[in-house]
Amino acid sequence: MDLKEYLKQVAFKVNTEADEYSKAVETRLREAASHLLNAGGKRLRPAMVMLAADAVRPGASEDVFEAALALEWTHTFTLVHDDIMDGDSLRRGEPTVHTVFGEPTAILAGDCLYADAFEHICRVKNTEDRAKIVAVQMLSHACHELCEGQQEDMAFEERDDVTEAEYLSMVRKKTGVLYAAAAGIGAALAGGDARQIAAMYTLGLNTGIAFQIQDDIIDLLASPVVSGKNQASDLRENKQTIVAITAREMGVDLSKYHKADLSAEEIAEAVALLESSGVLPAVRAKSEKLIADAKNGLSVIPESESKALILEMVDFFISREY
Amino acid sequence: MDLKEYLKQVAFKVNTEADEYSKAVETRLREAASHLLNAGGKRLRPAMVMLAADAVRPGASEDVFEAALALEWTHTFTLVHDDIMDGDSLRRGEPTVHTVFGEPTAILAGDCLYADAFEHICRVKNTEDRAKIVAVQMLSHACHELCEGQQEDMAFEERDDVTEAEYLSMVRKKTGVLYAAAAGIGAALAGGDARQIAAMYTLGLNTGIAFQIQDDIIDLLASPVVSGKNQASDLRENKQTIVAITAREMGVDLSKYHKADLSAEEIAEAVALLESSGVLPAVRAKSEKLIADAKNGLSVIPESESKALILEMVDFFISREY
Repeated sequence: MDLKEYLKQVAFKVNTEADEYSKAVETRLREAASHLLNAGGKRLRPAMVMLAADAVRPGASEDVFEAALALEWTHTFTLVHDDIMDGDSLRRGEPTVHTVFGEPTAILAGDCLYADAFEHICRVKNTEDRAKIVAVQMLSHACHELCEGQQEDMAFEERDDVTEAEYLSMVRKKTGVLYAAAAGIGAALAGGDARQIAAMYTLGLNTGIAFQIQDDIIDLLASPVVSGKNQASDLRENKQTIVAITAREMGVDLSKYHKADLSAEEIAEAVALLESSGVLPAVRAKSEKLIADAKNGLSVIPESESKALILEMVDFFISREY
Repeated sequence: MDLKEYLKQVAFKVNTEADEYSKAVETRLREAASHLLNAGGKRLRPAMVMLAADAVRPGASEDVFEAALALEWTHTFTLVHDDIMDGDSLRRGEPTVHTVFGEPTAILAGDCLYADAFEHICRVKNTEDRAKIVAVQMLSHACHELCEGQQEDMAFEERDDVTEAEYLSMVRKKTGVLYAAAAGIGAALAGGDARQIAAMYTLGLNTGIAFQIQDDIIDLLASPVVSGKNQASDLRENKQTIVAITAREMGVDLSKYHKADLSAEEIAEAVALLESSGVLPAVRAKSEKLIADAKNGLSVIPESESKALILEMVDFFISREY
């Protein structure tokens, strides 16, 4: 099966559960908790859980499917709360939860998804209790670090001198650890040994960081037609992305582009400058290194179709253009 | 040991850990997460965990101490988020977390304590993994119901026709389930059998509900000198407490007392009316029934000093005057 088809199947299964969840209880709180869960999304974290599980023990993904849901529920709770903090009114083309239901109910909706994520882990089938405890621990650890990452991200908005080390630490927490938990939990619940769990955890971690780096590149390069977003908005706002930080550290001055009304010509000029000065090549090299390291670590996992798919997914993370 | 001395010792141990937690990491987020945790509190939920554990297996409280912290961390996270939702500026005599650190950081502080609560459960010593999974499940279930309870409580503020059944359902979720989880988790982690765990769970549940009923009575009866709060504020605001609901269901008209500037004479008059009409005796009978049922259920637990203390604590919940 190719990756696209696989991801489609996972998304279908997750969407079905999200739909069930929204219909199971008819309260305003449940409606709020289901709102973003039912607004689609790529369901990449659930796919990571299932592929990691199958790579460790073929067929395990059926047993650990509840853990795949745990990861999606967790991801959704963080988005619901982040949207409140960031004052965002749109997400996945829908009004955000607090916009529709008000902030108090949105805080509770996130808290409710948070609780249910742990409940999902407990419902995993045919698994040693020890592995479930490891999964609970990885999930709680990830949630803790997600909070720290979001706090750092908010603090960076007040600054224009964020270092690469600070950026990578923030991105590791804000995006990396949940992918790490996804892959690590899949491996643990499938009965993987300590080396296999660690290799999968690192794969998820590096992939998550590379995913965010790619996001920064996409913001700069993707035309509004493709992305549905304003091109180069990070550049306009002088946001501390890996591109901006690398440019500063390489002495490339982008200050003339820090303005809201950038023209298409100016964007093309900035991109050309970032290519020719070596900034974009350096940024790409960083994420390629992360992915290469992660792939090498996977030598402790036997070859299989699932392993091939997970490697393909990792490549997709840094090759995607929107 | 008498109950007062026991609770003092538990509070000391919990306070020491809260202090450690605040010093372990020096970030603004940790400062925010520690703020309310370090503002004191009676630490009744940790005491419930430890007494339930010791009642099931003498000495178990030492092994399950981390679970006692899990309950206090959970309780604190709900208060931090509730204070944001309710727009409250003071708690335990201190400015609330969002007042000091802003709403975004307060949301994250609550989320962080939430994650760490589950982490605490995983750290319990000398316990079967199965029991830990039961504990995780009870905790996540409690968190889910707490959200529903808070949502119902907020919805009741818009109404003046809440029924007793609705009130009890809300209080069960908002206050009962966390005490239920405290006692149930203590019993489960100490190796209790299913009957013992269920008996402890019910004890906690009924006690929590009775605790809230007593709170409603205290609001009416406690003079500001004792409670530090405005006497009869619920009556002034026509809040849907068990007293107000029982009065309505017994045909006792309190409408003349629904005003902000109630005098001490008017409060005394209302109290006399609620006593003579049988409203307050009926309310007291409800909480006494809850406590009696809970105590009877505890026959599956052998007699011990810890069992005696837990029974004493239950009585304290409905006899306390502030």
